[in-house]
Amino acid sequence: MKKFQVVGIGNAMVDVLARADDSFLAQAGIEKGIMQLIDMDRAVELYSKIGPAKEVSGGSAANTIAGIAHLGGATAYVGKVKDDQLGAIFAHDLRAQGAVYETAFAPKDATDETGRCLIIVTPDGERSMNTYLGVTEFLTAADIDEAQMAQAEWIYLEGYRFDGPESHAAFAKAIAACKSAGGRVSLTLSDPFCVSRHRDAFRAMIQADVDLLFCNRAEMLSMYQTEDFDAALAQAASEVAIVACTDSEQGAHILSDGARWHVPAVPTEIVDATGAGDLFAGAFLWALSAGYSLPDCGQIGNIAASEIISHIGARPEADLTTLIAAAGLQPAT
Amino acid sequence: MKKFQVVGIGNAMVDVLARADDSFLAQAGIEKGIMQLIDMDRAVELYSKIGPAKEVSGGSAANTIAGIAHLGGATAYVGKVKDDQLGAIFAHDLRAQGAVYETAFAPKDATDETGRCLIIVTPDGERSMNTYLGVTEFLTAADIDEAQMAQAEWIYLEGYRFDGPESHAAFAKAIAACKSAGGRVSLTLSDPFCVSRHRDAFRAMIQADVDLLFCNRAEMLSMYQTEDFDAALAQAASEVAIVACTDSEQGAHILSDGARWHVPAVPTEIVDATGAGDLFAGAFLWALSAGYSLPDCGQIGNIAASEIISHIGARPEADLTTLIAAAGLQPAT
Repeated sequence: MKKFQVVGIGNAMVDVLARADDSFLAQAGIEKGIMQLIDMDRAVELYSKIGPAKEVSGGSAANTIAGIAHLGGATAYVGKVKDDQLGAIFAHDLRAQGAVYETAFAPKDATDETGRCLIIVTPDGERSMNTYLGVTEFLTAADIDEAQMAQAEWIYLEGYRFDGPESHAAFAKAIAACKSAGGRVSLTLSDPFCVSRHRDAFRAMIQADVDLLFCNRAEMLSMYQTEDFDAALAQAASEVAIVACTDSEQGAHILSDGARWHVPAVPTEIVDATGAGDLFAGAFLWALSAGYSLPDCGQIGNIAASEIISHIGARPEADLTTLIAAAGLQPAT
Repeated sequence: MKKFQVVGIGNAMVDVLARADDSFLAQAGIEKGIMQLIDMDRAVELYSKIGPAKEVSGGSAANTIAGIAHLGGATAYVGKVKDDQLGAIFAHDLRAQGAVYETAFAPKDATDETGRCLIIVTPDGERSMNTYLGVTEFLTAADIDEAQMAQAEWIYLEGYRFDGPESHAAFAKAIAACKSAGGRVSLTLSDPFCVSRHRDAFRAMIQADVDLLFCNRAEMLSMYQTEDFDAALAQAASEVAIVACTDSEQGAHILSDGARWHVPAVPTEIVDATGAGDLFAGAFLWALSAGYSLPDCGQIGNIAASEIISHIGARPEADLTTLIAAAGLQPAT
């Protein structure tokens, strides 16, 4: 029995959530529904244009880890913030949820600040993300504790974290430490444009090291550069032991060992889609570690995703354990 | 026609909102339902104990001013934050709502930080507030721009702001500048324990300068040190031109010029009571300035309060203008 069910590595972010309509996106030059990287100047400019906002801890893999901790799983997170007020908020929220978080803070005199993601939520619940990476870009292999990685049943790698100069070496160190101790590797593709930026590196990692691949339809199509979703799923399944691919209101597709399951989504009014995929992955990993069958893992992932999209912010507010228990699922093993 | 319908003066705060049950309050030594002042050490201690939180701009009078700006009123706010990340968030949110906010920031090297209020929301929707004043305590008369006060139809003074060494002089300067230009003065009593701390000063101000008094039942009883609510209301009405006293789910009592109206509350599920009184005052002042009758001002205040208590956070999320229009009220003048 390892100390951690899941250790996640990703971009540590505080989300700045504001509502606006589609015409604002057009005027501000924001592409709808995706994540775009911005520099500090653009972050300041956009922030001056958006309306009143709420600040909540975010970061894709951090949301996933917070979800697992919320469900009672033993987790740790690796991602860099600065020793500033937003960094303190990020660290507090993750630890308060029960996750271990020990990554060294960037010092107070660092030029950059804690990363933040300006998220514009449109009336349809879609989120358009503008990410200022800040100090989180500078996570290096030195921030990876090999002993911690060896204590993980699963590590969870965030595709977004492939941006930045030293990320590949950090991931390679984490994978080696985890695998050599018998752990398994999961990866999320994060975003179709992130896939475009790192397709070859992702593909090499998928084929060599990844045991469980998380993605959504657009990321899957981008990964395999095809419009044929079924062909892409089949190709992924031939390269990875488990594929868990979400498909918005169509639910999720799970493929493993020649089998394929379609798990319908849990119908919910969409208030804010931020974090839906992150929590799907978190609840899926928690359920897998707890011994649920793969299709049940998918259903549990869908339940968590539906909770997240029903409110503003990417961390759970309702008790996911109660929601999952209400579905009447039981571990298979 | 003056430039501002309302200029507010108060403690500038970022709210840190977390959910917990009553046993947490007992364990942490937090008194339920009131505001308690805490120092930085206690703020750090409490923050380490609370669960994941959300950060939203707050401050009682700032919430009031944000509500008026949201309704389209011309407003300004005076309150001190530091040149730090939370200060930037506070300033952004107020300006993004359309309020003028020009108070000088405390410098980066100030010992204290931007004030914050750790708000524990219990399952009944009640909020228990723990306020670290930080730099907002050091607002002085030098921060009061007499020209701005002279441009206000109303100034709105926050009772909480009476805590702190130089607040009385600041308020006196604001009142003199406003009144000498023909403006009027409103005051909120803020909290029954705040009334205990400043009863004599409040009473002197009420009798000498205040034209419109906002309070709730507990504050009214504390102010006049009686258990007889009707007697306290009558006493207040004998001292002030307009009294607007909220009474939780009983709605509000409005007294002026020998008349008294009871305005029933708008039934709502209570998610988080934070800011209900602040937005009542904001919508009331906006309506008064727009020429609505006093009972209609009370009803409009109740509509705004009901919106605020239906969600986490003390700033409006739904369109208050639409909600007020749906009530079919029209300005009397």
